Amino acid sequence: LNRIKASGLKLQFCTNETQATREQFVKKLQGLGFDISVAEVTAPAPAACRILKERNLRPHLLVHNDLVPEFAEIDKTNPNCVVIGDAAENFSYANLNEAFRLLIGMEKPVLISLGRGRYYKETDGLKLDVGAYMKALEYACDIQAEVVGKPAKMFFESALAEMGVPPQQAIMIGDDIVNDVGGAQRCGMRALQVRTGKYR
Amino acid sequence: LNRIKASGLKLQFCTNETQATREQFVKKLQGLGFDISVAEVTAPAPAACRILKERNLRPHLLVHNDLVPEFAEIDKTNPNCVVIGDAAENFSYANLNEAFRLLIGMEKPVLISLGRGRYYKETDGLKLDVGAYMKALEYACDIQAEVVGKPAKMFFESALAEMGVPPQQAIMIGDDIVNDVGGAQRCGMRALQVRTGKYR
Repeated sequence: LNRIKASGLKLQFCTNETQATREQFVKKLQGLGFDISVAEVTAPAPAACRILKERNLRPHLLVHNDLVPEFAEIDKTNPNCVVIGDAAENFSYANLNEAFRLLIGMEKPVLISLGRGRYYKETDGLKLDVGAYMKALEYACDIQAEVVGKPAKMFFESALAEMGVPPQQAIMIGDDIVNDVGGAQRCGMRALQVRTGKYR
Repeated sequence: LNRIKASGLKLQFCTNETQATREQFVKKLQGLGFDISVAEVTAPAPAACRILKERNLRPHLLVHNDLVPEFAEIDKTNPNCVVIGDAAENFSYANLNEAFRLLIGMEKPVLISLGRGRYYKETDGLKLDVGAYMKALEYACDIQAEVVGKPAKMFFESALAEMGVPPQQAIMIGDDIVNDVGGAQRCGMRALQVRTGKYR
């Protein structure tokens, strides 16, 4: 990482993290010794905020409490869409019914999902990820969610725009063959899979 | 109903009710003045019990508390499958993670769903039905649930077997074009849609 930075190459971190703000995410990585700043992070929540603003969407949020600050500047009154993230404990029966009722009551339901992960591992075991709950709402409302985050093309494009670099001149480095490598390649970038992290 | 009974025709009530035992269901209908007994009711839970016994499956139950007595005689130790019904308040984050972990830990995950409804209406509003949670677990585990209840063919066949009547000699009467009429027709029965109940 330090060598990339020293070389003068432009750098952007693309994460699907939706249980923390970019500030918290960066603090964690800085604590691990990485030289990283908030401006260098492309994450689903800010990408969703751009979409919300562009399309005059006012979200009902079904997300993790720690992610809510990312939506501080977004008008959330009288919602005309639902944004779902990895809400963890907030995935209660009552909260899911509330999100469902809002969607089914819309003339054209808009569901924006911060990722489509199936599950992930925590110290106390496997947990259902946002993708599972996205599927539940999709089925109940007979709709398709719009997925923000890797491997969505738009997500990589937004990282490229941040750096001002065309896809042909960028390379994606990641440990996930679908979300990192596949997503970047579909966007016209080259990609490199590292055998670290969750690689098996 | 009284005229059908007086005519000597055989009769079976096919319900997708999974928030109550047959006993409770029958009591409710009797209270409304209907002449009906438990033996005349075909419901998803007892149909699931037959499958569990036939295939030596020991279920982990994710169902409504009021339905649990239907599984009283089923061995539930060391589960090798998951049975999901309309669990209502039992659809908590913790309970869904538990069902998921059991499934993903099985060599060949077996998920039996008591219906595939999207949602239903209660006095306090619309609620997500079992189908939505079934889809969540299907997606997370990359599996297909086995659905018991209307419109599953097996469900109608079990009602026919109960009466000892071949499908050609039976008629299904219901208000749901998919679950009642479609399901019965695929089973070789004739079907009649009434414009009462939830018909719109």
